[in-house]
Amino acid sequence: MRMNILVTLNSHYIKPLTVMLKSLFINNPGESFHIYLMHSSMTEEELAGIRSYVEREGHALSVITVSDDMFKDAPVIKHYSKEMYYRILAYQFLPEALDTILYLDPDLIVINEIRSLYSTDISHALFAAAYHDRLSVKEINRLRLRPYDIEAYYNSGVLLMNLARQRERIDEHEVFAFVEENKLRLILPDQDIINALYAKDIVKVDEVRFNYDPRYYFYYKLASNGKVDMDYVVKHSSIIHFCGKKKPWNKNYSGNFHSLYKHYEKIALMPQPV
Amino acid sequence: MRMNILVTLNSHYIKPLTVMLKSLFINNPGESFHIYLMHSSMTEEELAGIRSYVEREGHALSVITVSDDMFKDAPVIKHYSKEMYYRILAYQFLPEALDTILYLDPDLIVINEIRSLYSTDISHALFAAAYHDRLSVKEINRLRLRPYDIEAYYNSGVLLMNLARQRERIDEHEVFAFVEENKLRLILPDQDIINALYAKDIVKVDEVRFNYDPRYYFYYKLASNGKVDMDYVVKHSSIIHFCGKKKPWNKNYSGNFHSLYKHYEKIALMPQPV
Repeated sequence: MRMNILVTLNSHYIKPLTVMLKSLFINNPGESFHIYLMHSSMTEEELAGIRSYVEREGHALSVITVSDDMFKDAPVIKHYSKEMYYRILAYQFLPEALDTILYLDPDLIVINEIRSLYSTDISHALFAAAYHDRLSVKEINRLRLRPYDIEAYYNSGVLLMNLARQRERIDEHEVFAFVEENKLRLILPDQDIINALYAKDIVKVDEVRFNYDPRYYFYYKLASNGKVDMDYVVKHSSIIHFCGKKKPWNKNYSGNFHSLYKHYEKIALMPQPV
Repeated sequence: MRMNILVTLNSHYIKPLTVMLKSLFINNPGESFHIYLMHSSMTEEELAGIRSYVEREGHALSVITVSDDMFKDAPVIKHYSKEMYYRILAYQFLPEALDTILYLDPDLIVINEIRSLYSTDISHALFAAAYHDRLSVKEINRLRLRPYDIEAYYNSGVLLMNLARQRERIDEHEVFAFVEENKLRLILPDQDIINALYAKDIVKVDEVRFNYDPRYYFYYKLASNGKVDMDYVVKHSSIIHFCGKKKPWNKNYSGNFHSLYKHYEKIALMPQPV
């Protein structure tokens, strides 16, 4: 059964998105993907490039162009664009027939199968996500988002969505009201919205398997008494998510998964045989 | 045209050898390899396993079993086995028809094409090799191997061989005599022999491309004014050679190419579809 993948994109992220998709395709052989790409500013030429890439790999692409007036009631915050609403309101733009979709950030690579993530039972939830289970992060974010009674602070870079339920339960006016009220303290707006409003409606998935953050390599290893080492991660983690400001495609990045990222970048951007 | 590859092996190195071969095959698509495996102690079962692996990948394997009495005149040094002679005297065991072969250590991975290394002109030399071009290493080794007038200290882990010329020029008695005389100061016996006796007859190849040592990641980067960074290495280096005592398949290894090594290990040791 085909898996639906949601990505959002602007021109700065074409290269990382290509790498992410290549890693997804190559490490899920025998699977068929339908990529839904939401954007507001890509050129026809850029979109054609992505389309031919996805189709050459044997998968399907649908482009959803969001014009700014579609969120005409939405409040904006300082340097954030209205793209911050794409993830949470995607259900409004996706085909009615779609019940499930997996949102993936472009700053990650998929190094093992994701069928088991896609099959997570979210029939009674809005989302499935991992939270980055380090006390300090959780505490800071709970504090920051008080008085919202959040259970945990989920990372929204990998987000399995129950679209059918979202259509019933997510109200854009509630979302816009929340943003309006909390303008000044939102740091990662889309992630903050999802956590503040819907944390109780999120199924937790394993962070090491589905949202491994390489900045915490030594933390994971220590916390697991050495079990979650490089060998374990390469064999068992499906998603390596390069969170934070430093990105592995930039000069002077350094980190334990740099060489692996560069490997996928190389094969993704390799000239194709004609 | 088929490339001939020489490897030497004992039971401890089956897994790394498999990883090395997998990386060689996968990154040289369209090439055909004939692997010559020299050993003295592998079991029939182990050899059958390697044979079926190589043949399943579409390449050929020849096994050369060296019995100890074949080097009956050879001196031995403390804890080294007679395997130390395999590389330098391989020409005696390989088919007469073979003119060229590339020796590869099992503690390396091939991440790009090696056709250009294989095609190096060695018509007037015995070997092609890289030397690890750091002053300290060279100086120490020159000193250690005095009074042999060596030009440089080559690393013998990647060694292109002109077998035709070796048959004429390499004399096992000279080799044995050298070892006998220098027993006490040989540290890496086979490498020391090759450098002391034949350094002038070695064509130098680029270390960064064909014998990149990940321990010196920052050295290469600095020495090249930033050019030889991770991006460069992943795109342009063909051979990453995990020199030294710490090996990337062991627990608690750490290094810039650890995740990439583990990636190749995973795909090399993946269960095969039946």
